[in-house]
Parts: sequence; C-alpha cells; structure tokens
Amino acid sequence: MNKKVAIIMGSDSDLPIVKGAITTLKDFGVTVEVHVMSAHRTPKQACDFSSNAKANGFGVIICAAGKAAHLAGVIAAHTTLPVIGIPIKSSTLDGLDALLSTVQMPKGIPVATVAIDGADNAAILAAQMLAIEDEALSAKLEQMKQAMTEEVLAKDAKLQAEL
Amino acid sequence: MNKKVAIIMGSDSDLPIVKGAITTLKDFGVTVEVHVMSAHRTPKQACDFSSNAKANGFGVIICAAGKAAHLAGVIAAHTTLPVIGIPIKSSTLDGLDALLSTVQMPKGIPVATVAIDGADNAAILAAQMLAIEDEALSAKLEQMKQAMTEEVLAKDAKLQAEL
Amino acid sequence: MNKKVAIIMGSDSDLPIVKGAITTLKDFGVTVEVHVMSAHRTPKQACDFSSNAKANGFGVIICAAGKAAHLAGVIAAHTTLPVIGIPIKSSTLDGLDALLSTVQMPKGIPVATVAIDGADNAAILAAQMLAIEDEALSAKLEQMKQAMTEEVLAKDAKLQAEL
Amino acid sequence: MNKKVAIIMGSDSDLPIVKGAITTLKDFGVTVEVHVMSAHRTPKQACDFSSNAKANGFGVIICAAGKAAHLAGVIAAHTTLPVIGIPIKSSTLDGLDALLSTVQMPKGIPVATVAIDGADNAAILAAQMLAIEDEALSAKLEQMKQAMTEEVLAKDAKLQAEL
Amino acid sequence: MNKKVAIIMGSDSDLPIVKGAITTLKDFGVTVEVHVMSAHRTPKQACDFSSNAKANGFGVIICAAGKAAHLAGVIAAHTTLPVIGIPIKSSTLDGLDALLSTVQMPKGIPVATVAIDGADNAAILAAQMLAIEDEALSAKLEQMKQAMTEEVLAKDAKLQAEL
Amino acid sequence: MNKKVAIIMGSDSDLPIVKGAITTLKDFGVTVEVHVMSAHRTPKQACDFSSNAKANGFGVIICAAGKAAHLAGVIAAHTTLPVIGIPIKSSTLDGLDALLSTVQMPKGIPVATVAIDGADNAAILAAQMLAIEDEALSAKLEQMKQAMTEEVLAKDAKLQAEL
Amino acid sequence: MNKKVAIIMGSDSDLPIVKGAITTLKDFGVTVEVHVMSAHRTPKQACDFSSNAKANGFGVIICAAGKAAHLAGVIAAHTTLPVIGIPIKSSTLDGLDALLSTVQMPKGIPVATVAIDGADNAAILAAQMLAIEDEALSAKLEQMKQAMTEEVLAKDAKLQAEL
Amino acid sequence: MNKKVAIIMGSDSDLPIVKGAITTLKDFGVTVEVHVMSAHRTPKQACDFSSNAKANGFGVIICAAGKAAHLAGVIAAHTTLPVIGIPIKSSTLDGLDALLSTVQMPKGIPVATVAIDGADNAAILAAQMLAIEDEALSAKLEQMKQAMTEEVLAKDAKLQAEL
Repeated sequence: MNKKVAIIMGSDSDLPIVKGAITTLKDFGVTVEVHVMSAHRTPKQACDFSSNAKANGFGVIICAAGKAAHLAGVIAAHTTLPVIGIPIKSSTLDGLDALLSTVQMPKGIPVATVAIDGADNAAILAAQMLAIEDEALSAKLEQMKQAMTEEVLAKDAKLQAEL
Repeated sequence: MNKKVAIIMGSDSDLPIVKGAITTLKDFGVTVEVHVMSAHRTPKQACDFSSNAKANGFGVIICAAGKAAHLAGVIAAHTTLPVIGIPIKSSTLDGLDALLSTVQMPKGIPVATVAIDGADNAAILAAQMLAIEDEALSAKLEQMKQAMTEEVLAKDAKLQAEL
Repeated sequence: MNKKVAIIMGSDSDLPIVKGAITTLKDFGVTVEVHVMSAHRTPKQACDFSSNAKANGFGVIICAAGKAAHLAGVIAAHTTLPVIGIPIKSSTLDGLDALLSTVQMPKGIPVATVAIDGADNAAILAAQMLAIEDEALSAKLEQMKQAMTEEVLAKDAKLQAEL
Repeated sequence: MNKKVAIIMGSDSDLPIVKGAITTLKDFGVTVEVHVMSAHRTPKQACDFSSNAKANGFGVIICAAGKAAHLAGVIAAHTTLPVIGIPIKSSTLDGLDALLSTVQMPKGIPVATVAIDGADNAAILAAQMLAIEDEALSAKLEQMKQAMTEEVLAKDAKLQAEL
Repeated sequence: MNKKVAIIMGSDSDLPIVKGAITTLKDFGVTVEVHVMSAHRTPKQACDFSSNAKANGFGVIICAAGKAAHLAGVIAAHTTLPVIGIPIKSSTLDGLDALLSTVQMPKGIPVATVAIDGADNAAILAAQMLAIEDEALSAKLEQMKQAMTEEVLAKDAKLQAEL
Repeated sequence: MNKKVAIIMGSDSDLPIVKGAITTLKDFGVTVEVHVMSAHRTPKQACDFSSNAKANGFGVIICAAGKAAHLAGVIAAHTTLPVIGIPIKSSTLDGLDALLSTVQMPKGIPVATVAIDGADNAAILAAQMLAIEDEALSAKLEQMKQAMTEEVLAKDAKLQAEL
Repeated sequence: MNKKVAIIMGSDSDLPIVKGAITTLKDFGVTVEVHVMSAHRTPKQACDFSSNAKANGFGVIICAAGKAAHLAGVIAAHTTLPVIGIPIKSSTLDGLDALLSTVQMPKGIPVATVAIDGADNAAILAAQMLAIEDEALSAKLEQMKQAMTEEVLAKDAKLQAEL
Repeated sequence: MNKKVAIIMGSDSDLPIVKGAITTLKDFGVTVEVHVMSAHRTPKQACDFSSNAKANGFGVIICAAGKAAHLAGVIAAHTTLPVIGIPIKSSTLDGLDALLSTVQMPKGIPVATVAIDGADNAAILAAQMLAIEDEALSAKLEQMKQAMTEEVLAKDAKLQAEL
C-alpha cells in the first residue's frame, strides 16, 4: 500500500498557506492527512502522532509553523521518517525567525526545510521522496516538471507577441 | 522548603557558558540541579523532567541551547513554572538563530529570554523570581546590586587615578 | 497580601499591544497597575517608580517599548524585582531594534524578554513568576494550559470534519 | 538494487565539512558517490549528472555549496529526485548568503535544506528518504536515534557524578 | 552592427519592475530582446540562450529574479558576456535573499549586481558597458546625466520658491 | 572658558577602544574627563553626572557601550547637551545590537551615533560641535582634514612608486 | 549673528519626513535653509554648498537620504562643520541600507547619525549643538524637555482615569 | 588604443584584497592603473580622477571600499564609464555595511557590485566589459573559463582516485 503524507500546522491560521500543499499532493494522487497540532499547546498529541506515524502508514511528515517554529523539530525528534519544515511568515521579522528555528537543527535530527511560506514546494518534495521507489509517482513528477517548462515557454511566447 | 532551580543544557558543550549560572545560583544559596537533556535527542526525558518539575520542588527551569534552540520551548510546553532561555552562540550566525528560536515563542507559552550566552543573568533572573516571596534572597540580590555598583565606582576611581 | 504586577509602556501608542497583557492578568485575578512612563522623557518618574516598586507591593514589572527600547533595562537598574520586557514593533526594522535593545542586557541586570509584540506572553510569564509560591494562581495557569490544548484539539477536529 | 546517494560539492574546499556526510552514509551501508562539480564552472557536467542521476541508480542527491550557493537549485532543475542542500559557511556573512540561496527556492523546484555546514544531517535525511521503503535501513536509523539518546543520557549521568 | 541587450526575467510577474529597464534602453536607442526564462523551470532554454548570446549579437545580458535568484549566475556560467543581475523583492525577507543570491558569486563567474528592484540602473549600466566603444551612446549617457542634474536643480529651485 | 568633553564608558573593558577618543581630543587641546559609569550598575551616578554636566562646564558628552547599549540614551535623558554614542562590538552579533540600541532613539531624545567602535570619529565630532563657535579649534580641524588628505596622497604616491 | 542650519535631502520625495525637522528648528527660532541636492546627481552643487557652508554662516548641516545614502558622508568630506545624517526608509530593506551607509563612516569623517526617519531628532540635535554657546537656545531646549515630560505625565494621568 | 582599467581603493589596507584584481587584469593583458583615493579624505582628487577618466583612456573603473563604502558611488557620480564596486569586509558587520552601501545605489547612478572581497571577479567583469568590442580579449576570457572548467574536472578526478 502507498505511504501517506501527513501535513501538520501549528495553528489553523496557517491553513491559507498550507492549502497549496494539500492540493498539490492530492493532484499527485498521494493520500494526505491534515492536522492542527502544536509543539507547545498540544505537545502530547504531537509526540504521539509522530511516534506512531510510521506504523500508521505515513512515509513523510510536513510541518508548518511560524515565529519560534519548533513543530518540525519536535516531530522529527520522535520519528525516523523524513520531516519537511515550512517556515511561516508572521507579523514580525518577515519569516526569518521561523526559517532559522526550522533549518538550524542540531546534529542528529534533520528537518528538510523549504522556503518561507513554500507550501507547494514542501508537497513536491514529499512526492519526490515517495517517488524514489514509486515509478508511477515519479512519472507524474516528470509531467509536472514538463508542464512547468511549457508554461514558462508559453509566457515567453506571449511576451514576444506583446512587446 | 525553598524551591530549587533546574539548569538544563542541550549539549554538554554548553557547560563552559552554563557554569556561570551554576556558580551564581550557588552563591545565592539556591539549590541547583544541572542536566544535559535534548529536546531532539532525549525528548521523553525532557518532557518527563518538565512535567514533574513542580512536583519535584523546582520553582524555575533554566534552559541553554544553541542553533534552532527548541529546548526552552519544549520544556515550557510541559510545565506552568517560569522557564528561562539562554540562547547559546554556535559556529554560525553569531547566536541570532538561537536567540530567535528561543524568544519568538507563540502566544500561550512564554520563555523568559536573556542575552546570547547570558548565563549569569539567567541565574540572577531565576533568583529574582524566587525572591518575590523570599525576603532573605531578596536581600542577597540587593547586596549583589550594591556590590556591582561599588565595583564600577572603584573602577572609575582607579581610572581617575591613572589618567 | 498578593503581589501586584506593574505594566509600564514607553508611549501610549503601545496601548493596543499592551491591552492583551492587562486583560490576561486580570483574568488570572492578578492586580495590575498600568502606566505610561518613558526612560527618556520621564526618567525621574521611571526611576522612582522602580525604586519603590517592591515596597509598594509589586512582585513583577512588565515594560513595553519600541525602537531603542531602554525602558525595561532602566527599570531593572533600580529594582531587584524580575522585569519582563516586551519589544514593540515600530515603523522600521520590524521590531529587531527593540528586541536587541531589550534582550542583550549586560551581566548583572537581566530583563526577561518575550517575543516582539508578545504582550499576552508577558502577562502569562508574570503570572508564572507569582505562582511559584501561589498554588491557586498555579492552578489557574494549569487550567489555561488545559484550555489552550482543548482549543487546538477542537480546531483539529473541526478541520477533520471540513476537509 | 538499493538506490545510491550522490554527494556533490561546489568546491574541493568544502570537503572537510562534507566528509561527515560521507562517513555517516557509509556507516548506514548506503552506497555513496562523491563529486566536485560547480553550477558555474562545470555547468554542463552538473546538468548531465543530474539529468542522468535517476537512470544511473541514484535515489537522492546532496549538494554542498557556499556564498551564492546555486548548486542545489541547478541540480534540482534537472531531476525529479529529491535534492538536499547544505549551505556552506564562507569567509563573509557567516553562511547567511548560502542559506538563503539554497532554501528560498521558487515554486516548483524544492531543495531540502539543512543547517549551515550541516553535512551529517544531510546524510541522515538522505538515509531517511531511502528508508521510506527500506525496513533494514529504517531499523539502522532507529538504532542511531537510540544511540544518540543513550549518549546524551550518559553525558547527563557523567555530569551528575562530576558536579 | 551595434550589440543588442537581452533582458531575461525569471517570472512574468517581474515585468512591472523590468519594464523600467526596457524603456530606458529603448530611449538610448539600444536594441532590446526580452524573455521569460527560468534557471529552474526552463534550464535548457536558459543555457542555450546564454551559450549563443554572443554569436547572436548580444553585448550584455540583464537578468531579473527573486528569492533564491539563480538566474543571473546560471546565465553567467554559459557566457563570457557581462551579466547584470537585478535582485527582485518578493513577499518575504524584503529582497535580501535575492540580493545575496545574485551578488555573492564565487570566484570566476561575476554578476554585476544592481540595487534590489533597480531595473533602471541595470539598463543604464548596460548602456555604459556598450558605450565604452560607442561615442554616440556615450554622449547620450552624458545628456541623461546632465538632465538628471537639471531635474534636481529644478526641484531645489521649486522648493526655494515654496518654502 | 572653553567647554570640556566628557567620555563615559559603560565598562572598563571598553577602554582600548575609547583611548582613541581621548588622544584625539587632547591633540585638539580639548579638556577631557573620562569616567566608567553604567546605565544599569551605577544609574544614580550616571543621572547625576548628566544632570550637572552643563553646569560643570561640559559642552558635549561621549558615551561608549556594548550589547543593549542604553548608556547614551540614559545620559541624553538628563541633559540638553549633545550626546554622542559609540556602539561597542562585543562577543556576539558583531556590534549590531549596540548600534541599534544607540541610534534608534525615540522622538525627543537624540543620540548622535557614530560607527561601531568609532571612537576617533566620536572625538572629531565632539570637536566639530565645540568648534561651531571656536575659530581656533575650527582651524585645527581644518589642519587635521588637510593632514588626512596629504596622508592619502602620500600613500598613493608610494603605491605608484612600488607597483 | 546666529549660525544657520542647512537641511539637505537627496530627493524631494524625502520632504514628508524632513518637514518635521524644518518645523522643529523654526520653533526653536533657528534659521533654516532647505535644499534638494544629491551626492550622485548634483555632486558639484553638493560639494560647493558644503565647502562654503561655514563661510556662509551655517553652523550645522543635516542630510537626509535613503538606500545607499552617501549624501551625509559626501557633505562631511568638504566641511569641518558637524554633519547630521537622517537615514530614510525606502521600499526595500526597511531602512537598514540607509542606516549602515550613513553611520559606518571611516575614521576621520564622522556623521552624527540619528534613527531611521528620525528627522525631529536631527533637528533637536542640531539645536543642541548650536546651544553649546547659546544660553537662550539652551533654555528653549530645556523647556521642550520639560514639555515632553509633562506630556507623558498627562498621558499617564489620562490613562489612570480611563482604566 | 585599448582602454585602460583603473582600480581605486579607499585605503591602502585594502591592497591585499585588491591585488587579486591587479594580477587578473594584467594576466588578460589589460593596462591597469592603481590608486589610493578616498571619497571622504581626498574627495577632490577622486572627483577629478573620475571626471577625466574617459578622456584619459580608461574604459572601466573598479572601486574597493569598506564600511560605509561611498567610493564607488562618488566615482560613478562624475563619469559615464561603468563603475564596478568591491565591498570590503572590515572588523564589524562582516561586510554587510559595505555591500549595502555599494549596491543600493539610487536611480540614475548604477554601481556594478560584486561579492564582498570579490576582487578577482571585479577584474573578470571589467575584462568582460572591455571584451564586448575586443575579440582577442573575449578569446582570453573564453580560455580562462575553459581552464576553470578543467581545473574543477581535475579536482573531481583526483577525488575519485582518492576516495
């Protein structure tokens, strides 16, 4: 059976950003489970979810959090599954705090960090991980890449026509 | 019985910085317990320690960690005791990552953050918290403040003599 | 008699941020006194307030200031009570100036710094300090923590229903 | 057959940092291929390597580069394999330039970024990706995690004996 | 025959900024060709364009990109023509990521970087390069400089009249 | 009688940097008084010094402090004399904390800030202020400026001879 | 005759910020002359103005500029009068570029830098400089300081009434 | 006759960095003239040099300066030749001040900025500009590019042999 991807956000206010990841993964046909969980407000639930994620059929966990974004690190502490972190921009410091809190993990517990508010890329990265041993998914990624190329070429052609 | 202070460091490499806090608290006659615990490598021990800290007679917990410093936040998630965070400078980014990871806590779970590598101040702050209801400790803090003033005045007097 | 908490803001323009701290402390049943005082424009009043705060029944002082935020440091210079600093975001530099001016205190005079604009957390931290020796307040903090957990769990349940 | 991991560094001066990743992966029994390739000085070789990496049996590509670190992004542009980026600290800006150049990838082409100079974590992350469908490797990761925990516990025990 | 200038933007969303460069160069009578090309989404097209730019009559290439802005570096890797980079401000980090990704190029492959969103200056710089051996263009640059001076003097005169 | 310049440093560890200011002012024939005083450790002495500085014959006050550098701001709060701030680089954050704490003063209380560790310039600036109404001092400043020019010209001449 | 203050802005778009300085100085009865001049677009005019400023009766020059703010430094290069720099926030980097370009002057040529967009403080600082030898102006500064204190006290009184 | 390149450094302490540019340009057979000139200490000489540079046979001017690096901007103000800026790292702020002071030029006066301490790249960029209309120089740049590629390939081959 195919592995699922979990998307955990530290606050439901992160949903507008995180939605891009949900859609992208569903487009790839990947089964997604989405949760609001907090490293600080529901630490027990976060630890339990992470500790059992592998047994529950997950292959990758995506975590989105802002400010002192500890969620991805805390989730990563309880699993050997790859954990992807999306630093969320909040009202101060333009996302730099969340970026550094997510990416600068100490030796032993990596978090695969994507760009600030980079939810789509988190989803693509999760799909790339699952595709290492899944040729069908790999082919879908190849198609998406091709489509991106064609989209840029079309924009360039449109620009040539307009200028 | 007087409340104890716990000092937890994320790595034993933080000990040279943390030693200042241990000495300062012992000078105030405060009972100190020091641990190496990691939010990422020993999360269970950290959670357990924090969850039981109040019952075990602690009044304040000091946490020292570098890089994506999640330790203070994770400890704070499991207790209602005040938690003090010391951001530790590591080999890159001059401590800014640890500072932001410690101080920018989301609503609901504060960490009382002191300066980067500011272990002495963490100890003084812990003593100040305990002294709210402890006149003897409060008097010792007042003496320390007086001694600091006299030390600066003595340095100024020495400077006047030299120049 | 229970210790009071003072909330001092450097400018009345900080009131919209600071209001969160006032409400939170009142919800905990803590007596709050709020002042506009400036380290630079009313230094004498600030020094006097701080010097007499302990005698006047205060247990903790919260200071909110923006830009080169000296207020918390100046207040801390005149008291042995714990001082909490809230760095306020102003029109330039996204609060980084206030954060560094508040948190990077020199040895001997700590300021317990919370997140930029983190007034609610300042209030919770003040309550945590007072609760070290106040079981009733400690119980209220425990309830608030429980309520936060339930709020996140409810949001997660709602999300499961919607997706 | 098991997938290989490629480690590409932008300059042979990155080898002291990158060695940690080589050792870690070999300890996991993962086959590693190491190259010096530059996004700017050998762009053709980098593109060719990346375009053919999947066909050549690679499952993950790790890229290490400093300053305006384009290597991981350029490699990611030519493959659907997951690409891990290690920002390398150089003589100015303390690694911030390499971090931002690696992590802030535009929509469509993710790079799984680890901490500045975080080569060990890049290796662990690569192993975690390969382990999604490899129970033996997953067990080794679990053992490493266990060993890390025990190492910290031992350090704590030693500290208790010493203090 | 006079050398042309190519303006390449990483995304068509950069056009509002880039338009200033197009207009400025056309005002100088320089032939401009504008493209949407991406270092990550159309890497082959970008490489081909750059590799053939000199043979196709271009003298300078201007590249505009945001976030982890690799476009100018990738273009510079395939040509000996001077490449000018315009870092584009995006929704996080205020353009600092694009600036560092563009300017901090490693030894051997320079990118002539202008200010964040500095498209007009990129155009003037391109004209200055072409004018090294083109006295007519040099004279036009001199006139533009003169006009700028007069515009400031006129504003000062207007200010004197108003105040 | 000519106005004196006061140089106040927050810590005697700042003396190696501050010495440049003392020497420079003495070379101009300006009477200098040097003190160690702390906004946090000797606030009363700092306030008293500042409040009486004008009456005691000072024309300018120079303050040097590191980290959360409040000294210049606190001195400026108690006087209408111009106050010059020298941000001192300490062991973390490369002086950025001291710079922002010194320069970002709120409306009403300016601090004339010079470069990080820029003690010589603080002295020259103080002399420039005193020279507004002192033609002899103004002439000395003109001579120093001339000497600087000649020093650079000599270095250029030496370089021409060597290359 | 009393010395005048010159206010020079690099662009007429700085006028909304600079107006605060004009008003403040006029309120002090200081004669002000305001100019638009650019270090880059009207360098000759800027040099001439600065070279002759002392002879033309100026005592202080205030310069306001954004981005790579060279204006204050260029003006300071041609005079021994004290030069005050106001870094202006522009559309990127939140004023940090202008601040560093203004304050980090090399040895020999100080610029007295105030806060980003701190035009009022620039005016007060200029008045403080002129007041060193002008008791009437000094008295006005003392009155303004008193008024500021009373304004804060009134706001505090109003707050006490409201809460 | 071939155009010359001028290399101007703000201080002779920049020579160790700048030497790389001198050697590189001489290797290309470009005539180089090197000067110590300061925007602040020898402004007249800098203006004169720049104003006459084109008439004196220069095609490009390279400027190296640290801290509030105004040199490149001031030189660019007086010429229509392309000006290349090398931000020099000094003892504080890791070169960020020099980078922002050099690159963030206002509209109308570009400075082609290279990496902090990137003197070699400044030289290559200058050669690229001169090579727009100089096929022989263009061929040399192509050879250098080829040599760089071969150097990296050789390093990779060596690495394959060693590992």
